[in-house]
Amino acid sequence: MNNLLVAQSGGPTSAINATLAGILDRAMNEGSIDTVYGARYGIQGVLRESFVNLSARAGLLEELPELATTPAAALGSCRYKLQDPAKDESEYEKLVDIFHRHEIRYFIYIGGNDSMDTVWRLSQYVREKGITDITVVGAPKTIDNDLFGIDHCPGFGSAAKYIATTMAELERELVVYDTPYVIITEMMGRNAGWLTAAAALSQGVNSQVPYLIYLEEHPFDLSDFLSDIRGELSAGINVMVAISEGIRDRSGRMICDYGDRDKAKDAFGHTIATGAGHVLENAVRQNLGCKVRSIELNLLQRCAGHILSKTDIDESMELGRNAVKLCLEGQNGMMSSLRRLPLDEYRVVYEAQDIAGIADREKKVPAQWITSEGNNVTPEMLNYLRPLVQGEVHSRFERGVPKYVVLI
Amino acid sequence: MNNLLVAQSGGPTSAINATLAGILDRAMNEGSIDTVYGARYGIQGVLRESFVNLSARAGLLEELPELATTPAAALGSCRYKLQDPAKDESEYEKLVDIFHRHEIRYFIYIGGNDSMDTVWRLSQYVREKGITDITVVGAPKTIDNDLFGIDHCPGFGSAAKYIATTMAELERELVVYDTPYVIITEMMGRNAGWLTAAAALSQGVNSQVPYLIYLEEHPFDLSDFLSDIRGELSAGINVMVAISEGIRDRSGRMICDYGDRDKAKDAFGHTIATGAGHVLENAVRQNLGCKVRSIELNLLQRCAGHILSKTDIDESMELGRNAVKLCLEGQNGMMSSLRRLPLDEYRVVYEAQDIAGIADREKKVPAQWITSEGNNVTPEMLNYLRPLVQGEVHSRFERGVPKYVVLI
Repeated sequence: MNNLLVAQSGGPTSAINATLAGILDRAMNEGSIDTVYGARYGIQGVLRESFVNLSARAGLLEELPELATTPAAALGSCRYKLQDPAKDESEYEKLVDIFHRHEIRYFIYIGGNDSMDTVWRLSQYVREKGITDITVVGAPKTIDNDLFGIDHCPGFGSAAKYIATTMAELERELVVYDTPYVIITEMMGRNAGWLTAAAALSQGVNSQVPYLIYLEEHPFDLSDFLSDIRGELSAGINVMVAISEGIRDRSGRMICDYGDRDKAKDAFGHTIATGAGHVLENAVRQNLGCKVRSIELNLLQRCAGHILSKTDIDESMELGRNAVKLCLEGQNGMMSSLRRLPLDEYRVVYEAQDIAGIADREKKVPAQWITSEGNNVTPEMLNYLRPLVQGEVHSRFERGVPKYVVLI
Repeated sequence: MNNLLVAQSGGPTSAINATLAGILDRAMNEGSIDTVYGARYGIQGVLRESFVNLSARAGLLEELPELATTPAAALGSCRYKLQDPAKDESEYEKLVDIFHRHEIRYFIYIGGNDSMDTVWRLSQYVREKGITDITVVGAPKTIDNDLFGIDHCPGFGSAAKYIATTMAELERELVVYDTPYVIITEMMGRNAGWLTAAAALSQGVNSQVPYLIYLEEHPFDLSDFLSDIRGELSAGINVMVAISEGIRDRSGRMICDYGDRDKAKDAFGHTIATGAGHVLENAVRQNLGCKVRSIELNLLQRCAGHILSKTDIDESMELGRNAVKLCLEGQNGMMSSLRRLPLDEYRVVYEAQDIAGIADREKKVPAQWITSEGNNVTPEMLNYLRPLVQGEVHSRFERGVPKYVVLI
């Protein structure tokens, strides 16, 4: 028997199930693959042999469009790194034993940096042990867009679209009164500012309200920030601000930690964690005295299935299909990837990318895509981003609320 | 000349422009109305004679479907209450003078409680002065759903749909790991819990994750809350919690103020405002030690044009058309309203409601629609809510981002 096992890992995204849907579409229509299994809760579920027989699920092929627009990981996820095999091989031995007993010839792991590390270690292990009947392939996902070896990450486009949409909507709120008003939005991204940059997609589309955008990659200076806001308010009455949660000052201190210096405590004596947005909201209120509100976009930016980028969902599915193709070709240790062609019109091709050199690295926003003042992004950044948010798809609604495909 | 003036007031909603679109649809197609003006920034714009000639705007009638799905107030808004005419009539004299000079025979004010107070005072004034060529009519809006004289408020259905959708999406996040996890969402509503109740619409739809829902109308007890969570966690591993921002303890103290007792300060010496959700997140973490995250739904719940209730948008438009009808009938001092018919199938009729007795009051959630434990809502509440979120409409997107109708 030639069985295929798929699992999902890391933080949820709005498109990780689209990749799963693409894998199922290709694998369940592929005569040479017998049974497709899903592992519950990532590699931990594999180690526990907690499998769901997806081939046996009635009607699943017809449900794939709905699965593709179901947010978060339909098979469940985990945050688990395999042991270093140089120190302890037992987990690897166990995995190989499980694969052999279930006649799993192909294993696809969908995830981000840490998950690609798992793929890399496991693929190296089977190669070094001369095990030729197991092929381990990675399928990328991360809203953070910080993976190497791929032009942009599946899941990022939908998160970017959610962010651009939210900015456009908050801009409507901002201009509704004719009094000075600053809205500060805080985006995910401890280590890379790609998501925050997506705020720029709505800039200038509906009004001439200025946007100030501060990415994690550029040192953040509080007095420069206040002077940026002051400058915009003196020219107009409103400002939209977008910041990465992970902005740091020149010394490397995180701005969100500015809020903790006095160990702010609530009535129960618990420390109050303060986000960077909240810290800056306080600073604007105190120093400029105008109406200001900070909004943490929070988990919604990675699970807002009700507003997805069609480009992202289509590409995520295709990356899943491509991952199955890599399995069938025996491309052990490769990640399903896409490359943007250097054409006027946006086009991508799907390919294989060696995971050695991808795992455990983070792709930052290039410095030349941030303006020299560090408070916005350049047209090159917008050219990179814009194709990724084209087209709209939405989760399925039933009786007025979202109705998802639930696999476990 | 018979001119009509329309203005918008109070906090933005996702449907206030649908009511404006309904007004324009009826008034611009009505032979007996000459020019339709919009006032910029509510009654303040009227007092400043800051008008936009909407009849002269090319192509506006064709743009009405897009206007109807543009969030926030396209004419701008204000928070301004007219003087008590018993103390000072000058503003009223000025308004009548402005209406007469611009041959404005009909004035429609779209807004919530405070705006209906303005309609009521102004309509009383013209009545008492024997001014018969000015008719003042109100058109309701508020996401809070706390207006008297109407079954439910335009704007509420879309906010409720956004909340139910968000809960469903966050529930996908909640179940993604097989470790105990509590998500606490905080909804708007200082004085009424209608929005928070809408969280219940997603309960049981996609999984059996328990929901705990605490409305502003029921006294909140922290130890009961912790024991509710503990009970649910002992039966399963995850809990979704929804709270009103305005929950209070039995003594009337707001839960969000629990966070301020020690006057928590950030590094700049500024007090850190803590929402009720944040306070409860800290309490759960400290007392139960499990993973917990609080999310303030914030402004998005009233401006998320990308996911609107079709029922709400259709009704909001019809309430606008009905407001024009009331003007033409000379129904001074009335509010355009709707009544739900006591049928098995949901149906509403549009009518006039005397504003005396509506303004400056707040409609609370009935006690019998909250469970006796105070931690959920009853099936009657769900029966009330469900029809209001039926059907989906979305803002128009252009090149991947929302493109709105901007009138001022």
